[in-house]
Amino acid sequence: MECHDYGLTRNTERKNLNLNPLQRGGVLTTEARKALYEFSDGYSVCDYCAGRLDEISKPPIHGFLDDLAQFINTDHARTVHGAREGKFAVMHALCKPGDTIVVDGNAHYTTHVAAERCDLNMVEVPNSGHPDYRIDPEGYKKVLDDLADQGEDVSLVLLTHVDGNYGNLTDAQAVAKCAHNTGVPLLLNCAYSMGRMPIDAKALNADFVVGSGHKSMAASGPIGVLGLKDEWADIVLRKSGMHAVKELEMLGCTSRGAPVATLMASLPFVAERVKHWDEEVQKTRQFVDKMEKIEGVEQIGVKPKEHDLVRFETPVFDKIAEKHPRRGFFLYEELKKRHIVGIKRGQTKWFKCSVYGFTEEQRDYIADSFVEIVDKYGELI
Amino acid sequence: MECHDYGLTRNTERKNLNLNPLQRGGVLTTEARKALYEFSDGYSVCDYCAGRLDEISKPPIHGFLDDLAQFINTDHARTVHGAREGKFAVMHALCKPGDTIVVDGNAHYTTHVAAERCDLNMVEVPNSGHPDYRIDPEGYKKVLDDLADQGEDVSLVLLTHVDGNYGNLTDAQAVAKCAHNTGVPLLLNCAYSMGRMPIDAKALNADFVVGSGHKSMAASGPIGVLGLKDEWADIVLRKSGMHAVKELEMLGCTSRGAPVATLMASLPFVAERVKHWDEEVQKTRQFVDKMEKIEGVEQIGVKPKEHDLVRFETPVFDKIAEKHPRRGFFLYEELKKRHIVGIKRGQTKWFKCSVYGFTEEQRDYIADSFVEIVDKYGELI
Repeated sequence: MECHDYGLTRNTERKNLNLNPLQRGGVLTTEARKALYEFSDGYSVCDYCAGRLDEISKPPIHGFLDDLAQFINTDHARTVHGAREGKFAVMHALCKPGDTIVVDGNAHYTTHVAAERCDLNMVEVPNSGHPDYRIDPEGYKKVLDDLADQGEDVSLVLLTHVDGNYGNLTDAQAVAKCAHNTGVPLLLNCAYSMGRMPIDAKALNADFVVGSGHKSMAASGPIGVLGLKDEWADIVLRKSGMHAVKELEMLGCTSRGAPVATLMASLPFVAERVKHWDEEVQKTRQFVDKMEKIEGVEQIGVKPKEHDLVRFETPVFDKIAEKHPRRGFFLYEELKKRHIVGIKRGQTKWFKCSVYGFTEEQRDYIADSFVEIVDKYGELI
Repeated sequence: MECHDYGLTRNTERKNLNLNPLQRGGVLTTEARKALYEFSDGYSVCDYCAGRLDEISKPPIHGFLDDLAQFINTDHARTVHGAREGKFAVMHALCKPGDTIVVDGNAHYTTHVAAERCDLNMVEVPNSGHPDYRIDPEGYKKVLDDLADQGEDVSLVLLTHVDGNYGNLTDAQAVAKCAHNTGVPLLLNCAYSMGRMPIDAKALNADFVVGSGHKSMAASGPIGVLGLKDEWADIVLRKSGMHAVKELEMLGCTSRGAPVATLMASLPFVAERVKHWDEEVQKTRQFVDKMEKIEGVEQIGVKPKEHDLVRFETPVFDKIAEKHPRRGFFLYEELKKRHIVGIKRGQTKWFKCSVYGFTEEQRDYIADSFVEIVDKYGELI
């Protein structure tokens, strides 16, 4: 058979400044690249398996999971294939088809599909709408009280710690309090927070936390993290009746390959970088300040920023696009000339971006580039 | 925090002749190593995603999945995280808790845990016992007839195409016939066959096939393949009610990272290598002949071999171990001196091995090494 020509290169994204928030936290460390080289083949981490991935001692996945549990302060930690697979595992273990769960109005689509896959009924805590799209922890109280009044049992409360549309950080501790007041456990989706900012699951009082290695922990995808309180281990880490050591929700073993080696290699670096989160937030705020100096650019979501993911509404670029011979493509093309990528081709009304991990010089170069592009087409506005 | 020292090297397994059957089919091609380099960062394959992994055109995952479907001759193909995740997806989509499925007595443990995770009732078609452990397709007929007599509905029939204990190849077409005669679909677990030998799902009349990239398709784990007949697409590839393009059993997207790039890069090579499967079988048979010339070494499982995974009973090594100062470790250590690894430390009563992908010279060197070790300790026998 003849295969298509796959042209497997990624030069554009690797060699330019990539503003895509999805890609900022997953850039590998040098150590992770070395680990990838070592563990690239097939089932590479399974050479010395005695029956369970999380107990392998060479490479020391067992010790690594202890470190990981310490890093996020949970009783148990497992690697899963990603945050979504972690959410599904918790929902599948805890809930029966038809059960009701409460989720935030900024939840990632994968929260919805995980719940749908489990045939759950979702009740949403709405956000505050344009322009903040804020999730108020009090909203959880109201929704939970209403459901209690209706005699409706709730099996799980889910909060998106930092959402992927506006980069809003929500007070998890306050939501945990609402959930626990009605006797319901909290699952905290930390895909955009774990590995970027410090996560202390016990301080936040989250029963479950999920994180994403490829999104925020300098690891090759697909890999995620599931952390849980000991009181839920019997349910979520329930073992097979036929194969005594195998955990059912993990299907025995999860990350049987290179990604777990990259997550391990990066953990010491990631544990260090979260200590500098305030500097990243500062860097982002200064970026927003510079961008908002452009007339027709406004940051959407809670202000001031508490996370690097920024959403801008950009009518100025949309206005230029109306008259520009390249229409909506001009912005992508002008940025690319300046070695900046990660804003979708054709998008000019609004965009999401992040300067996480860039130097201050790079950040200023990026902001200046946007200013320059507006200046260049001043006569079209 | 202080992380453990992970010592992330794999020199021993990479630089020696590795006989572990689990590792023989997952060794990367040069092209896959290059792809790994390109797509190592985080969510690398998602730069140009318009909402669904399997429709991404850069890298051309969409075209690749068409090639993959052609390669195994199925109507639809998806990548999943591994064969087990593919089995779980099919069971979860097709069956309700409490449903009955029929599986072979040589099924991999992941078949059991996937079924347990779905809360299914498993009825086993037994193997023939020592020394062949053969699965007779007629056994399926008997079990299915018995269940029908008891008025028990069966939701799914599963067959392990080549099992991981004895490397027995079972006649899938005959099992498909039994299943379809009672109106039940067949799921064929091809973890040890797809990518090693030619798989034509339509010729085998399998409704579903699952394969393993890290086990048999020269890819970095975790990645697997799920192929299915069009008539099951509405159920197994059912879409979200909230997010129109997202497939629920895939949780939207599966292989969001480097492994899918390696599977793509290796496919042209894998498509070529399966054409030479008869040479691999021949190589294995000659290996078994040489090994069985040693008194106290006997191949277990169906004879002659129809697959590279070989299980030997080796009382001769066990006898040496009884008197050897290093006891059971002697075999591992003697092999390692000869740059041969992949037999578990301490194992001497029996072992599994494979010479898949080795040259004839390497195969002979391996067999000769076993002979040499027996000769060396002749006085201990």
